[in-house]
Amino acid sequence: MTVYLVGAGPGDPGLITARGLDLIRSCDVLVHDRLVARELVDEAPSDALVISRAGLRQAALNGLLIELGREGRTVVRLKGGDPYVFGRGGEEALALAEADVAVEVVPGVSALAAVPAAAGIPVTHRGVADSVTLTTGHGADGSPPDYEALARIGGTLVLFMGLARLPEIVKGLIGAGLDPATPAAVVSAGTLPEQQTMIAPLAELASAAEGFVSPALVVVGSVVSLADAIAHATGASLIVAS
Amino acid sequence: MTVYLVGAGPGDPGLITARGLDLIRSCDVLVHDRLVARELVDEAPSDALVISRAGLRQAALNGLLIELGREGRTVVRLKGGDPYVFGRGGEEALALAEADVAVEVVPGVSALAAVPAAAGIPVTHRGVADSVTLTTGHGADGSPPDYEALARIGGTLVLFMGLARLPEIVKGLIGAGLDPATPAAVVSAGTLPEQQTMIAPLAELASAAEGFVSPALVVVGSVVSLADAIAHATGASLIVAS
Repeated sequence: MTVYLVGAGPGDPGLITARGLDLIRSCDVLVHDRLVARELVDEAPSDALVISRAGLRQAALNGLLIELGREGRTVVRLKGGDPYVFGRGGEEALALAEADVAVEVVPGVSALAAVPAAAGIPVTHRGVADSVTLTTGHGADGSPPDYEALARIGGTLVLFMGLARLPEIVKGLIGAGLDPATPAAVVSAGTLPEQQTMIAPLAELASAAEGFVSPALVVVGSVVSLADAIAHATGASLIVAS
Repeated sequence: MTVYLVGAGPGDPGLITARGLDLIRSCDVLVHDRLVARELVDEAPSDALVISRAGLRQAALNGLLIELGREGRTVVRLKGGDPYVFGRGGEEALALAEADVAVEVVPGVSALAAVPAAAGIPVTHRGVADSVTLTTGHGADGSPPDYEALARIGGTLVLFMGLARLPEIVKGLIGAGLDPATPAAVVSAGTLPEQQTMIAPLAELASAAEGFVSPALVVVGSVVSLADAIAHATGASLIVAS
């Protein structure tokens, strides 16, 4: 009776871990996020119970996982990306722990480096970026982030957020002193066939990426300027606004 | 004639991606980091050329990958973790791009969230940490990091570094205003059977973790205080210094 919190990876179904795929193929119950690849859901045994969590609030979902775990079934809770990188996996693990249900976390490839990689952007690079900061672009209580700290930290910023908030974030970062010419990118549907990448100076990113759809990841920092040279060899398709 | 830069994941061989494993199983040449799991190297076809990069400098390695790619062979360059998270994958991709050799990056599970997860620590958690900063603990030119920015950014700090520098980093962070009581952890050999975790207040972390060996990851932030409750359900073994 274990509940496995499994990361499905950033989108491309080939990017799940070997262990995660084995667990899906042998589970009794699969509870999956709406956005995970259909190909992965279809890997569950034909007699497995398959439940989409779409429409379930977090508390109801936690309760469901606890009940399924208590029934002694092998449960795979398949989550987009990595369960612990903005995935609320910690809440599910804690709820199960409090209910004395055994949990195993099987990490996944997070979008944080995989989605920039698919657009030719290495999030770290010697002499260019020696740190990476991941943020949702708002504080724990929904307040604005500490733009001055984000502007000062240097390195690469990777923003997990809805594109609707992009103009506000750009304004906040530039207002806090980040160079408006800092190279930046929006990558929509990263690692999937429909992936689109817009590269523009930070000040122009929001208008350049108008019409891009979620899920999308925003990358800000000098590493973005490497994309053009690397995409030449990887075949990644980029739109560059100057 | 493609060179695949493949992330092997954080240690546990089950944490490679399904696509990465398929590529190893069908490659002509496997060039691997010293620290990747032996089980993964053994997945290469029996007639594949297998080369450890141990002892090769980066420039020689880049040249080797270019030559192998030009010979039209299917080359897997297997790297620990994710190729683009402190993995120097960007340098290899750029060198190949400049030589007109086709490259594909197959991302891997980085230690950044997987190793804390294996110790019961979610790197993000609603209401506790809404950002994560990854750093090697020194600037691009080898200078000390901007401790004030690191102390101010909040959220979770994940340090990829040798343990020998831990006392200096702790001193720098506390000197820049980070609370000496901030929960912190050292995880050695994360995701492997010999994994060891020490949890201690930041000020005491270096002395508490004396004797821990590399590879190790350091985690600083309030999320570390969740480890005890989660480890109860995952069975992770922790040593807690108070």
